[in-house]
Amino acid sequence: MRNSSRGAVDPFIVMDVMEAARQAEAEGRHIIHMEVGQPSTAAPAAARDALTQAMQDDALGYTVALGIPALRKRIASLYKDWYNVDLDPARVVVTPGSSGGFVLAFTALFDAGDRVVLGAPGYPSYRQILKAQNLVPVEVQTSAKNRLQLVPEDLAGIDYEGIMVASPANPSGTMLGRPELSALIETTQAKGATFLSDEIYHGIEYEKKAVSALEVSDDVCVINSFSKYFSMTGWRLGWLVLPEPQVRQVERLAQNMFICAPHAAQIAALGALEAKDELQANMDVYRKNRQLMLDGLPAAGFDRIAPPDGAFYVYADISHITDDSAAFARAILDEVGVAVTPGLDFDQQRGAGTLRFSYARSSADIAEGLERLRRFMAKHGHIHA
Amino acid sequence: MRNSSRGAVDPFIVMDVMEAARQAEAEGRHIIHMEVGQPSTAAPAAARDALTQAMQDDALGYTVALGIPALRKRIASLYKDWYNVDLDPARVVVTPGSSGGFVLAFTALFDAGDRVVLGAPGYPSYRQILKAQNLVPVEVQTSAKNRLQLVPEDLAGIDYEGIMVASPANPSGTMLGRPELSALIETTQAKGATFLSDEIYHGIEYEKKAVSALEVSDDVCVINSFSKYFSMTGWRLGWLVLPEPQVRQVERLAQNMFICAPHAAQIAALGALEAKDELQANMDVYRKNRQLMLDGLPAAGFDRIAPPDGAFYVYADISHITDDSAAFARAILDEVGVAVTPGLDFDQQRGAGTLRFSYARSSADIAEGLERLRRFMAKHGHIHA
Repeated sequence: MRNSSRGAVDPFIVMDVMEAARQAEAEGRHIIHMEVGQPSTAAPAAARDALTQAMQDDALGYTVALGIPALRKRIASLYKDWYNVDLDPARVVVTPGSSGGFVLAFTALFDAGDRVVLGAPGYPSYRQILKAQNLVPVEVQTSAKNRLQLVPEDLAGIDYEGIMVASPANPSGTMLGRPELSALIETTQAKGATFLSDEIYHGIEYEKKAVSALEVSDDVCVINSFSKYFSMTGWRLGWLVLPEPQVRQVERLAQNMFICAPHAAQIAALGALEAKDELQANMDVYRKNRQLMLDGLPAAGFDRIAPPDGAFYVYADISHITDDSAAFARAILDEVGVAVTPGLDFDQQRGAGTLRFSYARSSADIAEGLERLRRFMAKHGHIHA
Repeated sequence: MRNSSRGAVDPFIVMDVMEAARQAEAEGRHIIHMEVGQPSTAAPAAARDALTQAMQDDALGYTVALGIPALRKRIASLYKDWYNVDLDPARVVVTPGSSGGFVLAFTALFDAGDRVVLGAPGYPSYRQILKAQNLVPVEVQTSAKNRLQLVPEDLAGIDYEGIMVASPANPSGTMLGRPELSALIETTQAKGATFLSDEIYHGIEYEKKAVSALEVSDDVCVINSFSKYFSMTGWRLGWLVLPEPQVRQVERLAQNMFICAPHAAQIAALGALEAKDELQANMDVYRKNRQLMLDGLPAAGFDRIAPPDGAFYVYADISHITDDSAAFARAILDEVGVAVTPGLDFDQQRGAGTLRFSYARSSADIAEGLERLRRFMAKHGHIHA
């Protein structure tokens, strides 16, 4: 049996970090996790209660491929609540995580050889899924002055059939304001290309609300998920919003490729959507953690950062300190027991000079992690002790 | 925004049947469901109990991409219990349903343009997923004398990089014996092609045990699921067994395309694997239903059937009665309120002359459905009343 060429995607560097952290813990060390991109909180109690009840009342067989109608309707109403956008529930497709949403959208909207623009740094799986589906990721370097987001000028002279943006972004946490997002959508549509907006971190935002691409245009593909704001990573549930003429094609593909998203997760999601108080309590922790990071990282010598508008990451430029972020991250783990992510997963060109810090865990852990980082940097002479 | 060409897959005919049945029920009619390919039973109580407990103890975040180690180990031990095969748990990959298994396997093992042989009749999603992934389904007509399974002679003169078989098969329920399976694997391997074995209906077998491709060779890709024997359709959990050199590539793809299979479903599956008594009680119902079908279908005039070795389907040749199985199925639904599946989803060439009857529901429903079918056939003069 042979392996395919298209399937030979890059390994995740962060997996090596996680494995090294696991080994250190197995040896009895206390590790602070600033590498992990997920909440430490469970799904809201209302989500779990809804499922406990449903497991008594219902066989939980297949749902229809587009998702439970009540869930699609409730997701549509979120667009009214969050953005004052009227959204037809018929345009909402419930997917097995945002991952399943990417797989479906890329299959339904692009043919082999199509080029899709991605800003670097960015979520590495975009690139890998595109490659695995015979599509061509076109990575474009963003600049610090644009807060690591694409701008129309970056696209000059580039040929492409699609573009994917994320706001708030992983790894930077920066957002596209409405004018910036509008300009990108306009440029893309003028070219006749397809605009995809990854809005998975919406709801986790600090000083202002994230802008949805649906506020700007109906002719976009929005990808979202219950993983982050709704704290349901392991449940694997997300959604797409599509223009009406794309829904039927995505439905047929979903019937064949997935049959349906996990029924149990759909029930839980209906509960989570009503758990505003608990979710806001999670947000209070993120907000506190963010402030700890914005104070503590510069104090530890990581001062080349942009304040994150959303999500739970800070992306730091350490290119003045090292040109080997993987070795640097490894030294931090070995010497002071903090797991952080080297930038190489997010940016193949410049990631050797960057680190991503996650602040999704408890505030006590974040405070302890920052103190350890300060000790590390002082010991190596990067700051005065 | 445009739709892709590769994503323009065929609609499911059975969906029209299901929608018509739903409408009839909405109008107050009592419909017997012989169209549905899933158990009416819930996941075993032990599965649901395990999850209820875990929802209190665990945040249920992402699992590692290959699946919870204890689950992979327990699945591997199933091969000892069921087939007396020693299987290294490192070769087991937990997937989001067998659907996710197909998507992963096809991506990891085949490049664009590769040809994959499928026997007709067969599960329609093989063909659609292949097309959506830029692969070429090569449908080969099987014959009644081979009980609608492929034999090596069918492959003479055909060029292909892969072949997919299913035993027990959907829609026919027929199995490949060990000599027949060995012959197909030998033919495929002699050609240097990849052998995939869909074993999703294993465990639901009547007169003899189903044979796993792993009993014959280690150089095969086996696809299985918790949906059928373990009665967990809506949970979307399956697994692959791969040769060791393929595991790393599938792992990297799974990390990017799915992150992990649903954590809740993995916990439930660990419970289901210990629920032998409850699952055998389900089997007692299927066994009784099968006998009702083998007596009742010929009595109703559907006498061109092969006794199913496994699964919960009977596939009937009605080409001497009609050349429009869709219209025939519609008439059965309209006149006597039994939903059955026309063969067109399973066999584009001959399916206009076939029907699939499912007997996955309660025995009372099956008995009532058979009586209604008898009435329909008598009314139309196909049998003497």
